[in-house]
Amino acid sequence: MNLKKLILVLNILFIDGCALTHSASKSMSADLIIKNGTILTMNANKQVIANGVVVIDDKTIIAVGSNDLLATYSSLNTIDAEGGIVMPGMINTHTHVSMTVFRSLADDVPDRLQRYIFPLENKMVSTEMSYLGALHGSIEMAKSGVTTMVDMYLYEQSAADAVKEIGLRGIMTQNIIKYPTADGENAKAKIDLALAFIEAYKDDDLITPGFGPHAPHTVNAEDLKLISALSEQYDLPVSMHVAETEKEFLEFEDKYGLTPIEYLDSIGMLNERFIAAHAIFVTDSDIALMKERDIGVSHNMVANIKSAKGLSPALQMHDLGLRVGLGTDGPMSGNTLDIIGQMGYVAKLHKLDNNDRTVMPPIKVVEMATIGGARAIHRENELGSIETGKLADVVVVEVQSANMVPIYNPYSALVYSANASNVATVIVNGKVIVKNKVLQTYDETKSRQMMIEFSDRVRAISKTL
Amino acid sequence: MNLKKLILVLNILFIDGCALTHSASKSMSADLIIKNGTILTMNANKQVIANGVVVIDDKTIIAVGSNDLLATYSSLNTIDAEGGIVMPGMINTHTHVSMTVFRSLADDVPDRLQRYIFPLENKMVSTEMSYLGALHGSIEMAKSGVTTMVDMYLYEQSAADAVKEIGLRGIMTQNIIKYPTADGENAKAKIDLALAFIEAYKDDDLITPGFGPHAPHTVNAEDLKLISALSEQYDLPVSMHVAETEKEFLEFEDKYGLTPIEYLDSIGMLNERFIAAHAIFVTDSDIALMKERDIGVSHNMVANIKSAKGLSPALQMHDLGLRVGLGTDGPMSGNTLDIIGQMGYVAKLHKLDNNDRTVMPPIKVVEMATIGGARAIHRENELGSIETGKLADVVVVEVQSANMVPIYNPYSALVYSANASNVATVIVNGKVIVKNKVLQTYDETKSRQMMIEFSDRVRAISKTL
Repeated sequence: MNLKKLILVLNILFIDGCALTHSASKSMSADLIIKNGTILTMNANKQVIANGVVVIDDKTIIAVGSNDLLATYSSLNTIDAEGGIVMPGMINTHTHVSMTVFRSLADDVPDRLQRYIFPLENKMVSTEMSYLGALHGSIEMAKSGVTTMVDMYLYEQSAADAVKEIGLRGIMTQNIIKYPTADGENAKAKIDLALAFIEAYKDDDLITPGFGPHAPHTVNAEDLKLISALSEQYDLPVSMHVAETEKEFLEFEDKYGLTPIEYLDSIGMLNERFIAAHAIFVTDSDIALMKERDIGVSHNMVANIKSAKGLSPALQMHDLGLRVGLGTDGPMSGNTLDIIGQMGYVAKLHKLDNNDRTVMPPIKVVEMATIGGARAIHRENELGSIETGKLADVVVVEVQSANMVPIYNPYSALVYSANASNVATVIVNGKVIVKNKVLQTYDETKSRQMMIEFSDRVRAISKTL
Repeated sequence: MNLKKLILVLNILFIDGCALTHSASKSMSADLIIKNGTILTMNANKQVIANGVVVIDDKTIIAVGSNDLLATYSSLNTIDAEGGIVMPGMINTHTHVSMTVFRSLADDVPDRLQRYIFPLENKMVSTEMSYLGALHGSIEMAKSGVTTMVDMYLYEQSAADAVKEIGLRGIMTQNIIKYPTADGENAKAKIDLALAFIEAYKDDDLITPGFGPHAPHTVNAEDLKLISALSEQYDLPVSMHVAETEKEFLEFEDKYGLTPIEYLDSIGMLNERFIAAHAIFVTDSDIALMKERDIGVSHNMVANIKSAKGLSPALQMHDLGLRVGLGTDGPMSGNTLDIIGQMGYVAKLHKLDNNDRTVMPPIKVVEMATIGGARAIHRENELGSIETGKLADVVVVEVQSANMVPIYNPYSALVYSANASNVATVIVNGKVIVKNKVLQTYDETKSRQMMIEFSDRVRAISKTL
């Protein structure tokens, strides 16, 4: 394909330089064309292209523009967006996808982590469960236009198997925690799991393995330092819960006289490979430090307010130029895995918090959901916008459903009107994985049946807790 | 039908009294049966019936129970809920449904009411627009499981025509405001419109006409008193925006030394026919007064926070026994018209506001969305729950979509996981208006096309503002 790509690139250069010969040039064949959409490119100028065309060859976007492009490119595989919104695939920067198996169990119980989640995980987590939950959750994400996730869970390699099977992109980080869990006695055992996973997936197109130390207070400093060194050695990401609860904040203040962010920095964790989930309890100087260390931030609004933890100053971080993306957290915390459902909350809550309806316009929220997420994972050069040369992760949102009519502003329609079901077509790495709302990569009836059978076991065990 | 009903009631009594002859009794025919659902009755005991059956004859629910009922009743028209959630139709206690024509226009512009909404309304509102917007918005509501709305708009009779055509129940209140509007020079002209509308619709099954004085500061006291007297004379409802902005609150304090609630009470407006929309800026003594006067309250969370107005103490009101339902506000304020989308916000925001994840369990939110809404409109004896003798407004929510699997708690699934698209079947007044997600009462392609054509005119005019 490299030769084919080279020829295409030369052709693009040729056409750009020779506008007069444009319509006369012979049509070039591409693997996939999307036409007749309103393209939200999310490029640096936030260009919107009415009646636009996206041309994809192999895994890459090779042209983006007006429908004049149809005179240049043709494809046996053309998707008519029917006036819909064509946007970059959304990036879910923090989740525990396998936890779909526990969704809606013990919601709102104050001590649910100790009373339900850890005991259930000790009894029920296996490679099978990690795979099954990730399979089901990946289907939900795929159908709602999430094309990349950052995940953290037990037996993460099995979750990665499922994510790859559905066809999503995943930064899959093996959970590392000092307590005994179903997948290992201590942190070291789980670091070994991470290393085996890295070995298995080191050259994968869709899956990036990584390290998922649970939280500053649930992994020893010595192990955190080892993780940081390994992430540097392999040049792989680290995702971690940080400053999620007031209790954690006060504990570190009490123990070290440091904020959780300062503590992590003091042991050398904060750098461009680090993705901090939550970051609710952070000070202004924490934010300055986070920016200086160039870490990514995952803003998990819905999960954070469902549990009454608080509101992250993510808008302030974004406005200061930090790398902020949106995340759902696990489906036992936020219950849904789609980013469209997050966007409305993110827009409205920051307005309420700032007592100003103008601080969080929809375009800024869509930015966080796409290129912001790509920045949070330090992959903005290849993901997060619809631009020539970027990887082909593209979503078409239909505008036929009653809630999407009329549209005077496509960003507004996405943030204030759309729900996950409006996503019609999803392309990841150039491959159509959802077409006209139907998943192309797995039989949903089968995955649902597997999940229902597993949930009967969960129900039985949860009654004993 | 009265004789038929009497026979059925006698039969129910007979069966209840003669359990032994139960299985031997000949099966009775009913107009419609829903089977194989998890029924959230929302009755006084919040009974949940697994694998339950709802039997409907004509406009009325005539039996609710386990699937044993299938031995007693049969119907040529049986809906298999396929394990889905069967719940009372949701009640949208405040909207301006015709404003769908303006949805997503000028969102977040600080002075949009004066700069866009009023000028647009002056130029564009007509009986045609009121009908078209209501038609489109009613379709959105129907498909999302809203079975009753409380509406307020200009040319309300035309909106009522559309609501009736789609088959929804509506408390349709003619907007009354002192300023000249497209439908009348002053408040008196609009009161006349209300009276003509009442005359036309006085015996309608689905439509209840009413009075919609705009707000305490936009209608003169003298006209408010007249409206109150007319509502008593006709025994018809009044819906009104109350205490929606801090500005309004401060204005009344400054002018009269009264809160908006106290002001309205001082002129005799507050009674069991009154439905207050928003009620954000209310004091504890206002709340006590609202309870004493037995008014209904419409809690419009999403619209209120989108505009950064504030958070109504609706949870406090509900816990004190006030009649609190949920509302979307108009689609230029809240952008969507479904109540499912409100529920997640209502659950989470009150938790965040109270710094306590236990204060707003999903069951309480579903209560507000159903029987709470019925109480807000003083119709809890005939609407808001699935009970024998109540009007047959019933919704089936499917549990096949990925976001609805698995389910350990149906209330939690509705509030934290569901979106409007999960509604599969909707019955209003015994009639199936949505079946397997397809509207039965209107051609959606036609209404969409009409709306798109109208929106082109709106777009052209909005550019001149």
